[in-house]
Amino acid sequence: MKSIIIASTSTLHGGNYLEYLLPTLQSHFKNCSTILFIPYARSSGISHDEYTKKAAQAFAAINIKVKGIHEFENPEEAIQNAEGIFTGGGNTFLLVTQLYKNKIMQLLAEKVKSGTPYLGTSAGSNICGLSMQTTNDMPIIYPPSFQTLGLIPFNLNPHYLDPDANSQHMGETRETRIKEFHAFNAIPVLGLREGSWLEVKGEKITLKGNLKARLFKQNETPVELETETDLSNLK
Amino acid sequence: MKSIIIASTSTLHGGNYLEYLLPTLQSHFKNCSTILFIPYARSSGISHDEYTKKAAQAFAAINIKVKGIHEFENPEEAIQNAEGIFTGGGNTFLLVTQLYKNKIMQLLAEKVKSGTPYLGTSAGSNICGLSMQTTNDMPIIYPPSFQTLGLIPFNLNPHYLDPDANSQHMGETRETRIKEFHAFNAIPVLGLREGSWLEVKGEKITLKGNLKARLFKQNETPVELETETDLSNLK
Repeated sequence: MKSIIIASTSTLHGGNYLEYLLPTLQSHFKNCSTILFIPYARSSGISHDEYTKKAAQAFAAINIKVKGIHEFENPEEAIQNAEGIFTGGGNTFLLVTQLYKNKIMQLLAEKVKSGTPYLGTSAGSNICGLSMQTTNDMPIIYPPSFQTLGLIPFNLNPHYLDPDANSQHMGETRETRIKEFHAFNAIPVLGLREGSWLEVKGEKITLKGNLKARLFKQNETPVELETETDLSNLK
Repeated sequence: MKSIIIASTSTLHGGNYLEYLLPTLQSHFKNCSTILFIPYARSSGISHDEYTKKAAQAFAAINIKVKGIHEFENPEEAIQNAEGIFTGGGNTFLLVTQLYKNKIMQLLAEKVKSGTPYLGTSAGSNICGLSMQTTNDMPIIYPPSFQTLGLIPFNLNPHYLDPDANSQHMGETRETRIKEFHAFNAIPVLGLREGSWLEVKGEKITLKGNLKARLFKQNETPVELETETDLSNLK
């Protein structure tokens, strides 16, 4: 049975790394003594080692050890043997490129579908959708494909940001960008604000956290969804 | 001799489409009775026809006719015969995909390098750099390559946005995204704020408009450049 947490962000303003999620993660990873960390997205360009250390520090608070996938000689074996898996944020283009390069995109999807508990934040959440095509990140590297894990039957826009009515900036709003996506793609897109996450238990998908999320469907007016909304039938 | 205007945005807050640039464009396109418009980036997802009409309305104020490249049976011939060329903004992934699909990426570069006056705004400016890898746009479509026209020997970030000190949003700032780009790429990136543009005359590249621009180089602290700065030696 799938058991997945898909979080908009790792960190809330004024909080520490993963702090707001720790109570949820304690129960989510309750059967894990060690989890596998995938640091490929290299948040702010930091190294795999630095990033893994940061994750380990956060998980130490709930007595869970963290090992980086780059510490294993064989990334496929690392995935196969993992008790639980966490993919951190950073650059989605880089993350997806590395998952393909290390030939673990499909394996990771199968492993999580078979019931291994998974946590994604930001870029690590983006890859849970059907494609990475609604990421906010810069295309700093050319991935072999935009297709991702497909753990849920729609796409995500993490760090969803509402248009700022006072802004004089004329660059596209997030909503305009998603509208452009829907000019060519029929996949629904869920804008997850910072502090929201999706809980996936088997085939049940539920919106969690204190905030509403914004749902974009092709040729439809976007709608606000309340927390605890059941998204199992969204596709 | 190259003659190029590379603008951060088409429209300033409170202004009309291309309005702030019209005096510059009048002299830039002074020998053109008709210019070729490339609407492939489909700003906000509008159609090629609608977008071309919008461009034509703006250029009517300076007595220049506009014809969309999609109105020609053969896009290559349209480029070859153009007196002047304008590529509008929208989605850079879509623009680049269409340029490759219609086999005109290289031809457009050669045509502009041979002296045909060119105007780019936003996505149409992004493609003037070495690659589209510092775009702000969503990857709504998978282009065959991220390489672009290379009319200037560095990359651009149009609509450059300074970090908002009051923001509680934890998504990456523009500066963080460019830093991630520089973890893998040595190409300098010029952040062009809305209202700035580059003027290229032969090999001379000059920063124009009333604002400073922000220059990012790999492993260096970003610097602010004054308007009228000569960028001919930047690479």
